[in-house]
Amino acid sequence: MTEAAISAALARYVTDSQWHDVPAPVQHQASRATLNWLGCALGGCRDETVNRLWDAVRDFAGPPQATLLGRAEKADALTAALINAVSSNVLDFDDTHIATVIHPTAVVASALLALAECRRVSGQEFLHALALGIEATCRIGNAVGLAHYEKGWYITSTCGVFGAAIAAGKVLGLDAQQMNGALGIAATSASGLRMMLGSMTKCYNLGNAAKSGLSAALMAAKGFTGSARALEAPRGFLSVLAEDADGPAVTRGLGQRWEMLDVAYKPYPCGVVIHAVIDACLDLRVLHAINAAQVTRVEAMVNPLTIMLCKNPAPRDGLESKLSIAHSVAAALTDGAAGVAQYLDERVSDPALVALRKKVVLCEDPAIGKEQARVNITLADGSRHELSVEHARGSGGRPLSDAELISKFRGLASGVLSPARIDAALAVWQSLETCADVGELARAAA
Amino acid sequence: MTEAAISAALARYVTDSQWHDVPAPVQHQASRATLNWLGCALGGCRDETVNRLWDAVRDFAGPPQATLLGRAEKADALTAALINAVSSNVLDFDDTHIATVIHPTAVVASALLALAECRRVSGQEFLHALALGIEATCRIGNAVGLAHYEKGWYITSTCGVFGAAIAAGKVLGLDAQQMNGALGIAATSASGLRMMLGSMTKCYNLGNAAKSGLSAALMAAKGFTGSARALEAPRGFLSVLAEDADGPAVTRGLGQRWEMLDVAYKPYPCGVVIHAVIDACLDLRVLHAINAAQVTRVEAMVNPLTIMLCKNPAPRDGLESKLSIAHSVAAALTDGAAGVAQYLDERVSDPALVALRKKVVLCEDPAIGKEQARVNITLADGSRHELSVEHARGSGGRPLSDAELISKFRGLASGVLSPARIDAALAVWQSLETCADVGELARAAA
Repeated sequence: MTEAAISAALARYVTDSQWHDVPAPVQHQASRATLNWLGCALGGCRDETVNRLWDAVRDFAGPPQATLLGRAEKADALTAALINAVSSNVLDFDDTHIATVIHPTAVVASALLALAECRRVSGQEFLHALALGIEATCRIGNAVGLAHYEKGWYITSTCGVFGAAIAAGKVLGLDAQQMNGALGIAATSASGLRMMLGSMTKCYNLGNAAKSGLSAALMAAKGFTGSARALEAPRGFLSVLAEDADGPAVTRGLGQRWEMLDVAYKPYPCGVVIHAVIDACLDLRVLHAINAAQVTRVEAMVNPLTIMLCKNPAPRDGLESKLSIAHSVAAALTDGAAGVAQYLDERVSDPALVALRKKVVLCEDPAIGKEQARVNITLADGSRHELSVEHARGSGGRPLSDAELISKFRGLASGVLSPARIDAALAVWQSLETCADVGELARAAA
Repeated sequence: MTEAAISAALARYVTDSQWHDVPAPVQHQASRATLNWLGCALGGCRDETVNRLWDAVRDFAGPPQATLLGRAEKADALTAALINAVSSNVLDFDDTHIATVIHPTAVVASALLALAECRRVSGQEFLHALALGIEATCRIGNAVGLAHYEKGWYITSTCGVFGAAIAAGKVLGLDAQQMNGALGIAATSASGLRMMLGSMTKCYNLGNAAKSGLSAALMAAKGFTGSARALEAPRGFLSVLAEDADGPAVTRGLGQRWEMLDVAYKPYPCGVVIHAVIDACLDLRVLHAINAAQVTRVEAMVNPLTIMLCKNPAPRDGLESKLSIAHSVAAALTDGAAGVAQYLDERVSDPALVALRKKVVLCEDPAIGKEQARVNITLADGSRHELSVEHARGSGGRPLSDAELISKFRGLASGVLSPARIDAALAVWQSLETCADVGELARAAA
């Protein structure tokens, strides 16, 4: 625990930051994050999780200020932040900060765009606030470290609430003291248990964080006071929710090194630590013309974290299958794909996949990185095929291109928006930096 | 950590419970808790903390379903739960479960009454659900124990969210499985840092818990799924937010022993652990006709927890003064009272009180209980007067009578409601058990 004024320094940095201080690659990354997030929200907006949540809260929602992405209804900005964060995470297709396994944009962008629809916010202001919010989320995640996650916290929501507060506070024009207060309110709102993975409540964690972070900024703007040392105080967030947190990591090299550049976009809608295994299976299947019916054994050698998170050998539904290496292997080898369709309930209960899942053996090896995997497949004729993946598709070592992101967006939006509206939304996105009102993006995705 | 299905057992007990299963003293306690809570909400409803919070969220509030107690406005039930919980706690005058220092009713009753205004709930149903919600809050508090509080959690909100979910779930008619799901959603919403004591955000913790608990019940009613073992799972609430939690304490003797009977009502609007010291000062002042100007030294011997929470020798404002033994001593000796007026900003900055606070010396003694104190006053003439308090007024050993509670209610309501309306509200309260619609109580307090 440090005595330095971490919260105040972070607040001051954020309020002082100018768009031209943000390096071009970070600016570009904010734009990519926006597109990926919007696509995920459209792809997920009709999920049963979203329907039930909206059904539970709609009678209590305020005036129709903000778009529920992909839906006909509108809601007050706090409710829209809640719903859109859930929509954009429910497919497990949103972005990931590799070092912390945080999915930052769902929380931050959902709070920010909902607020932006209540007041005129330019595309540039939006991208700037988004970058700052994501950066803060990932940095606080670095500070609490993997021990926080291992203890049982759902790091995306516990850290994301700060990012949402910062992004919203930035466009609200909070001064440094107010921003510091917003961090205090966010700290005392931080919640989310990792054990909810595999149930609807996992996504609710993100929605709750988006709404709480936005609330924190709104409250701070009205002079609501919180602790000014919420992160670093002896009984502050870093001490209470983490063991041996690296507090200075929050502000170390702030403005110089950008964690946001290490945010990756998923090619597959499942746990990011499974992706290298899927790459290997898809490639082996093509390289050796493998027929899944002939597979007798699949050995997947992965990082220990991958095993910890995704060892479930027999997922019972689509939700659980997204955190199952065995299911991902079975589906990839059978279908030659690992898209939204491969993680639906009906696919999970397919007898052929159930049988193939039982042939998957997991081995952990700390020498294998989280973006890496080695897969060895044995066929009925006794032949064996092995492939090592050094950098999973979509990972830092092999990022998705802009074209791949646009293609992903089109795929996700296709069931929800007409082709003309998809083109219109992409057109708004492509000129986002010069757009006078980012609300246009939300309305294009309604 | 235990393997027993604590969450499921708690959910089943709550859903099975009938009003006639609740012992008469507990029924009566639920009624007393309601009156004390309502008075506190009326007394606090015009506090700047409430004004700023309402100012921040009013533009986002939904339809006027539920009363903001003591105010002219209405809001959707979730927002009303938020605001009313803050109103009822802001004076630090609400009730306390002595063993855990939880203030249960502000969270539970605020969620419950707001929901009751959206659907017809009888007075008996209200009292029943309130008793169950308070009981669950205190029992979960016992399970996490003092270590949870010492670690830095604000136990009233972290445990209160469960009570709010249970109370709301009970009147929503959740079945045992849905109730279990509501506990899961509540667990992942549990938040609140103790370091916020002394800032506006302390009260926000309670509001957030009331709103989140109500949300959890509403979501569970719509089939939103959470973990069924949210309390006891290896990475569940009891493990993540506490060290060595006594899980079985949640359900041990459930329905036999009622923690709710150990909920106390405050005669003074400040930290409950200071009350015995105030009793001693007020009594010494009268017994020895003490003139505060003649006091040269005050020794207060108290429980170590009292020191830990309330050692602040120089509070800067009313909020901080509520957790200052020194200020309470100075005000009680000077004014012969410790009411709302003694904890206002202007009283805290009074030079005479500032001077007297500096003469207060604190000594901790583990042999002195939390409801006890020994105070020794030295006067300018060298005389010394000592008094030991065995049971503070309002504590378990010396509970406030119904008449004292009614008097406290009248005092708190007097600045907000007309005398006729105060009488009307008391009349509704006095026949609450036979009242067909508890919403009458809310409307009487509008």
